[in-house]
Amino acid sequence: MSNIREEILEFIENNAIEEKWFDFTHPADIAEALEELEPEILHSFVALMDLENLARIIELADEDLQLEIINKLSLEDAIEIFSYMSTDNTIDILGNLSIDKRKSLLKEMKQGEANELRKLLGYDAESAGGIMTTEYIILKEELSKKEALTKIAEIGPRTEIIDIIYINNNKDELVGTVDLRELLNVSDEISLAEIMDENLIAVTPDVDQEEVAFLVAKYDLTAIPVINQNNKMIGIITVDDIIDVIEAENTEDMLRLAGVHEEENINSPLGKSVTRRLPWLAVDLGMTFLSAFIVSLFEDVIAQAVVLASVLPIIANMGGNAGNQSLSVMIRGIALGDLDLDSENGKILLKEGLLGLINGAAIGLFAATVMYFIHGNPYLGLIIFLSLTFNLFIAGLLGFLIPMVLKWMGFDPALGSSIFLTTFLDIVGFFVFLSLARIFINLLL
Amino acid sequence: MSNIREEILEFIENNAIEEKWFDFTHPADIAEALEELEPEILHSFVALMDLENLARIIELADEDLQLEIINKLSLEDAIEIFSYMSTDNTIDILGNLSIDKRKSLLKEMKQGEANELRKLLGYDAESAGGIMTTEYIILKEELSKKEALTKIAEIGPRTEIIDIIYINNNKDELVGTVDLRELLNVSDEISLAEIMDENLIAVTPDVDQEEVAFLVAKYDLTAIPVINQNNKMIGIITVDDIIDVIEAENTEDMLRLAGVHEEENINSPLGKSVTRRLPWLAVDLGMTFLSAFIVSLFEDVIAQAVVLASVLPIIANMGGNAGNQSLSVMIRGIALGDLDLDSENGKILLKEGLLGLINGAAIGLFAATVMYFIHGNPYLGLIIFLSLTFNLFIAGLLGFLIPMVLKWMGFDPALGSSIFLTTFLDIVGFFVFLSLARIFINLLL
Repeated sequence: MSNIREEILEFIENNAIEEKWFDFTHPADIAEALEELEPEILHSFVALMDLENLARIIELADEDLQLEIINKLSLEDAIEIFSYMSTDNTIDILGNLSIDKRKSLLKEMKQGEANELRKLLGYDAESAGGIMTTEYIILKEELSKKEALTKIAEIGPRTEIIDIIYINNNKDELVGTVDLRELLNVSDEISLAEIMDENLIAVTPDVDQEEVAFLVAKYDLTAIPVINQNNKMIGIITVDDIIDVIEAENTEDMLRLAGVHEEENINSPLGKSVTRRLPWLAVDLGMTFLSAFIVSLFEDVIAQAVVLASVLPIIANMGGNAGNQSLSVMIRGIALGDLDLDSENGKILLKEGLLGLINGAAIGLFAATVMYFIHGNPYLGLIIFLSLTFNLFIAGLLGFLIPMVLKWMGFDPALGSSIFLTTFLDIVGFFVFLSLARIFINLLL
Repeated sequence: MSNIREEILEFIENNAIEEKWFDFTHPADIAEALEELEPEILHSFVALMDLENLARIIELADEDLQLEIINKLSLEDAIEIFSYMSTDNTIDILGNLSIDKRKSLLKEMKQGEANELRKLLGYDAESAGGIMTTEYIILKEELSKKEALTKIAEIGPRTEIIDIIYINNNKDELVGTVDLRELLNVSDEISLAEIMDENLIAVTPDVDQEEVAFLVAKYDLTAIPVINQNNKMIGIITVDDIIDVIEAENTEDMLRLAGVHEEENINSPLGKSVTRRLPWLAVDLGMTFLSAFIVSLFEDVIAQAVVLASVLPIIANMGGNAGNQSLSVMIRGIALGDLDLDSENGKILLKEGLLGLINGAAIGLFAATVMYFIHGNPYLGLIIFLSLTFNLFIAGLLGFLIPMVLKWMGFDPALGSSIFLTTFLDIVGFFVFLSLARIFINLLL
């Protein structure tokens, strides 16, 4: 990368970019280098670039750089840049601009284009409509191979994919697909209808992007068509965009699970990170007071046998970590579409409960034995065994139930799950352990 | 799905499958229905199917079903099935079969094919060589458009993708790519060399699949070529296979973070889940004894002020959850390629430390105030404030350091990170809090 930076500085000094440079330097690498540049250097360099190459770079740049560049360009240049991009990338950028800037850009564009973009901007950014692009090949079913190939050569350069040709009937309804490979191999007079595959997987524009990604992965698709209520094709989502969706959804799951805002990343400024993590910590603190309160109810018992205090961390930590194990398996199961509200949930709940019981008994037995050897009191070991078994049993159940209840209530099943789970298990675990201690207190002394 | 099941039962009864059925029923849906069938019904149905349709279904089925079907087929039928599949899918299945079965299959195949498969089986299953397939179009750079299109029509039907044509020079070195869309639009006598893009992103077969996925996402590729040391192209990895890699790596991260074996899923049998989770719980228990030991060192202090016991859960829980926040952000940063051993790690460490300090002070202040109102002792509040600030500061540092140290040592940065982190924070937190309590014990009474 430092290499690209030096080349850029040299170009600025010479006040010209060697055209050959773009043949050997990938736009994604240039974008990465530009993201690191100081603003003045960036703008001097951008001024040297032709708009077509600039468009290719902007498409691969991060959001901050995209806005930085577009905001500095004249409206005319920005509009020309968009003309080199696919619609989905244009929509992404327009959606991130200020409302004023977006309005002035749309006003300067040709009316037909502007209206199409306005319509696309109306879709939720995380729905099929929000991520689709409008560059694809759709042909009438009655076309012959020869006619089709002529059309493909003509439209092809402006489309996202070329290996799947979508097929329309006379009512403009999407009715099938033709694989370009198959088309190339039939004789000239064969019609598209004769070789088309009617096994269509399509989505409507309101479908959530996570569901779209799930379908693409399940059916091993290169692209998925987007259709309206009249079965008319209105867009396409290609698999390379699906990768971005999957990464974003996975980031969201992992961060939300731990109680972090889904937009946080390692480069977020300190202030934003504080405000993105503190709210969940505050929720956590509120719940933690409850577990402190439970312990305080048993101060008389602890005062009689202080050893109990040193067992509390074992109960809390083992419960929390066993619960997080179940929770992670569930959240992935939901993300991969293996688990939904309709599937055989009773069976999985039972399994997680049993698993907790078995692992709890194993861990409990081991912990009890060690504590017996340290303290010489078999009853202390016994209540540790019982408490850990019970706490890990509950951990298994809750690891399943918390995400499922969140999902059933319409929330993201990952949302703060881990924080709820660990704190709830503290409360249950302490209560059970200290209650047992109170009952058997005479035997513990 | 129940629909497909009924249709399958009907076909078995009639002892024949309507050929039209496959035109309207997606092989992925059939695979899903077969995964739920009882073994006898499955085998009756498989016996009715022609091998080409069966191959398309097996390609989209899960591992268990693939092995179940292939193991029941005769060697000849299995080999015919493989001939309808792409090499990467064949390799996947062969790799999962028993060694004996694999050997007998390879022995029955044509020698050339068997040798190619043996070579591919030699690559690590999670490397570029292990996931690549060998069906792609590579043409000599001197071919004209017309010659190229004839070749493409001929080879195309057997390849994974058709929209990118790879270009060889006379020394059989991969030197560039031609986009089929561009090719369709030039005149017949133009040579491939004239329009090829020399901006090549390629990998060698030993590159880890995670790195491959990262390159495909970064450069927005539809496919990435695999080359050997002599720059000869030996395979291709398409973006739809990359989706599977990304999902697998994300599952691995999330599960390993929580101390669960990466192959566990919601359908894993109970016994396997026990053995996949118990080892980490045992490691955790071992470390938890250390935190219990720390607490036991302060039994005299706790005996004097039992209220301290009820504060321990607050210290432990807040530290653990704040640490998990940092950890999640780091693990995602590493997965997305934003963070590696060379980047500006000092800056990120400083930020996470500061973030912990700020959030710790905020949470600490709030907790101290509440405890002051409950217990009326300002010094208890003060040591809670100091301990939480310190513990969340350490949580921030460790959330960064634990995955980085694991990575630096050559382990997966997610491997059990959360378990190490939460338990270590318990130990540090208790030690600091109880030490402060010992120092100020006279003020707490």
